[in-house]
Amino acid sequence: MTSAGADPLRIGQELDGAVVTVDPGLPPHVHQEIEEIIGRPLGTGPGPRVHIGPGFPEPAGRERLLWVHSTNAGVDALLAARTPWPREVLLTRTVGRMGERIGQYVLAWALAELQNVPGFLHQHETRTWHRLPTELADGTLAVVFGAGRIGSAVGSALGSCGIHTVGVAHGARTAPGLDRVVPLGDPGETGGSGVPAPELAEALSRARWVVNTLPLTPETAGLFGAGLFAACDGATFFNVGRGETVRTDDLARALRTGRVRRAVLDVLPTEPAPSDDAAWDLPRTTLTSHSAGPTTDADITADFRGAWHTLRGGDLPELTVRVSAGY
Amino acid sequence: MTSAGADPLRIGQELDGAVVTVDPGLPPHVHQEIEEIIGRPLGTGPGPRVHIGPGFPEPAGRERLLWVHSTNAGVDALLAARTPWPREVLLTRTVGRMGERIGQYVLAWALAELQNVPGFLHQHETRTWHRLPTELADGTLAVVFGAGRIGSAVGSALGSCGIHTVGVAHGARTAPGLDRVVPLGDPGETGGSGVPAPELAEALSRARWVVNTLPLTPETAGLFGAGLFAACDGATFFNVGRGETVRTDDLARALRTGRVRRAVLDVLPTEPAPSDDAAWDLPRTTLTSHSAGPTTDADITADFRGAWHTLRGGDLPELTVRVSAGY
Repeated sequence: MTSAGADPLRIGQELDGAVVTVDPGLPPHVHQEIEEIIGRPLGTGPGPRVHIGPGFPEPAGRERLLWVHSTNAGVDALLAARTPWPREVLLTRTVGRMGERIGQYVLAWALAELQNVPGFLHQHETRTWHRLPTELADGTLAVVFGAGRIGSAVGSALGSCGIHTVGVAHGARTAPGLDRVVPLGDPGETGGSGVPAPELAEALSRARWVVNTLPLTPETAGLFGAGLFAACDGATFFNVGRGETVRTDDLARALRTGRVRRAVLDVLPTEPAPSDDAAWDLPRTTLTSHSAGPTTDADITADFRGAWHTLRGGDLPELTVRVSAGY
Repeated sequence: MTSAGADPLRIGQELDGAVVTVDPGLPPHVHQEIEEIIGRPLGTGPGPRVHIGPGFPEPAGRERLLWVHSTNAGVDALLAARTPWPREVLLTRTVGRMGERIGQYVLAWALAELQNVPGFLHQHETRTWHRLPTELADGTLAVVFGAGRIGSAVGSALGSCGIHTVGVAHGARTAPGLDRVVPLGDPGETGGSGVPAPELAEALSRARWVVNTLPLTPETAGLFGAGLFAACDGATFFNVGRGETVRTDDLARALRTGRVRRAVLDVLPTEPAPSDDAAWDLPRTTLTSHSAGPTTDADITADFRGAWHTLRGGDLPELTVRVSAGY
């Protein structure tokens, strides 16, 4: 099920008369660029409403809402705030260059570990000159959960340094940027303390890097628990998806036993993390304040422009959210 | 001029009877592997001597020295300790996977800067959750001094993340791994406070990264001085070549004025750096204790094996040192 109960042909035909609004929190140059794209001032027109912003718009009177373009890639909070989603309203999201950004983030932190960047920074502070061991990346294995745009971009970035990559997804057996894709299995069985399917378990046992790029959906909540971590053997775990996909207690245990070597967490169940959040106390872990995949103003306008023109051509935009899937 | 005054055909013919010795500081498994390569015990034979080690061997009696295989890539110290080099003695060096290692070192520290790895490590220590800005690497420009094996490997590593690369070398206009190569010009004029040639100056002015991979030779000593740094406009400077190629006072001034944004120095004029070395006080600088390009035991035996078989075939090994050039 897409977010559009109605067909894109109808929506495309209504765009010329639509009232387009932009969240007031977005900077003036975004407002100007949207006006250039639609070819008229914002907030004018006789027709139904199109809104661009991070959340669901406040309704103005008895207007009819046609389309919401989310300025974020993750729409879990937006969907949670408006349940059930009105079938007739189209929801698109902004991805922009987020995949490349997250790919370089993961690569940067992986290479920082191999090149012992934290160790040298610490040595420098204490004016210590000792040769520290470093490792080459190539030949190591990364298991990337999610084989969509972001998982593929992470695979491409790691692969550029000779890192082998295995994606994990429902259904698909291949994806761009990933050497191969193995099945996730039923998350209800794989998640929490469940045991991962043999092909996934085998990959995890050889992995030097495990990267979660999955969105938060009812299926992925708590997916990363004792079961998946027990299948690891010294992998460094990255979470660039959503915080609630990880059971922090289970991760803490896996870090203590060494099943997980290190963790780099861009996302947490509670954000911003208060200073007494348990995640700050995880051993060998770095938190990076949900900075891995920012969407820039240029991303927002570029993805809106693409969706606008696709709809006017009568097609459904590539970045249309399937509400049942949650992304 | 090569290090071999005599021709490789003669040396190859003498190898079967040569006495091969390995520096006692190298681990037993290296001794064993060399014995497997030469097909007989070390230290036996009626003929002239072949030595594998970091330095010039002590002569045993009236023996004739045929060939020294250096276990390091940089042979400046070895040559300085034995000047003039005896024309009839072949000198080869170990490079191994050093190029790839140095390439990943430079890429790791460049990405660490773009992804603000030091900033997040610091935030984590103080349990601070603030989004910090990050940058994508692609589209930035690196100027790589040296277009040999190491310069090419640095170019390849940076290029894999979409970084544009310009090599700087004598003569050559192309090199693998580098988008293009511009002339260094006469180091006597370019070095110190000299002004770089227009093509090089233009590249430096646009560079986000400046990487020195050059060996220490009479020509490169003090090359990186006020002149080259003044041509930069906010580049981060890496030294993975030799410490004496850089005038530390000039680098300090360039860091203070912002001509140089940051410095990552793997090598220094004095190593190991004492805790009162001026380099520890350079602003926005990290020292990494000459760890970027270690030669491993596997590198030493692999490059010796290659040179041994090339010589037995009557050819000069690729890793033969040209004594006049210093590498």
